[in-house]
Amino acid sequence: MKLKNYILVGYLVSTLLTILVVFWAVQRMLIEKSEVYFLVGITLIASFIGAAVSIFLLSPVFSSLKHLKKQAQDIASKDFSTEIETKGPLEFQELGQAFNDMSHNLQATFQSLDESEQEKRMMIAQLSHDIKTPI
Amino acid sequence: MKLKNYILVGYLVSTLLTILVVFWAVQRMLIEKSEVYFLVGITLIASFIGAAVSIFLLSPVFSSLKHLKKQAQDIASKDFSTEIETKGPLEFQELGQAFNDMSHNLQATFQSLDESEQEKRMMIAQLSHDIKTPI
Repeated sequence: MKLKNYILVGYLVSTLLTILVVFWAVQRMLIEKSEVYFLVGITLIASFIGAAVSIFLLSPVFSSLKHLKKQAQDIASKDFSTEIETKGPLEFQELGQAFNDMSHNLQATFQSLDESEQEKRMMIAQLSHDIKTPI
Repeated sequence: MKLKNYILVGYLVSTLLTILVVFWAVQRMLIEKSEVYFLVGITLIASFIGAAVSIFLLSPVFSSLKHLKKQAQDIASKDFSTEIETKGPLEFQELGQAFNDMSHNLQATFQSLDESEQEKRMMIAQLSHDIKTPI
């Protein structure tokens, strides 16, 4: 189930609950029968708008998730160029920061390994040369 | 702002909207004045329950976010032991999978670099020995 649907389920519960209570209240004569359509209408519209607001607010989350996945795949293939700018909820900003830090650390580690590899390769070439042409 | 508050804002909008419409309807005589408390009550309770359901459903998201952050920090310090089991929304499961794949790939890359480093070190030792004791 997608993240969006998790939010919609909450609104569905809230809407159904309100509608059920309205019908129960009509049966108990707490609400006039003629008002039912109006009340159900408000409930549906308000829930729809609430859900739309939530999903609109969460749109940076959806894009952050995509970017994080893309960055993980890039790092897996040793491409550290992707920098993430995570917008949206605090938790995502922190995760994005941890991700960028990880990327920088790994890049530095790989770089120093490459340098040490390069050094050793040169040493081997030098030593081989020394063996072939002794002083 | 935390993820939880993003969801609460949606419910706040939805609740305020319903309450405003109810008061407007009372002024327009569409709803009996005596019903206002009852309707506002339902709206508040239903929104509260809806928000609680959403946040309860999203609880795996909160823990996934924490785990992902922890794993990013572990990987940054070359600790590939943390395996993530992301529950919750599909997008998070995919992100967790991408993360685990990245961890495995990096571990393999580091291992092969270490082996090549080891090989070169042995070669250097061998060559140095050959120079000191020529045949």
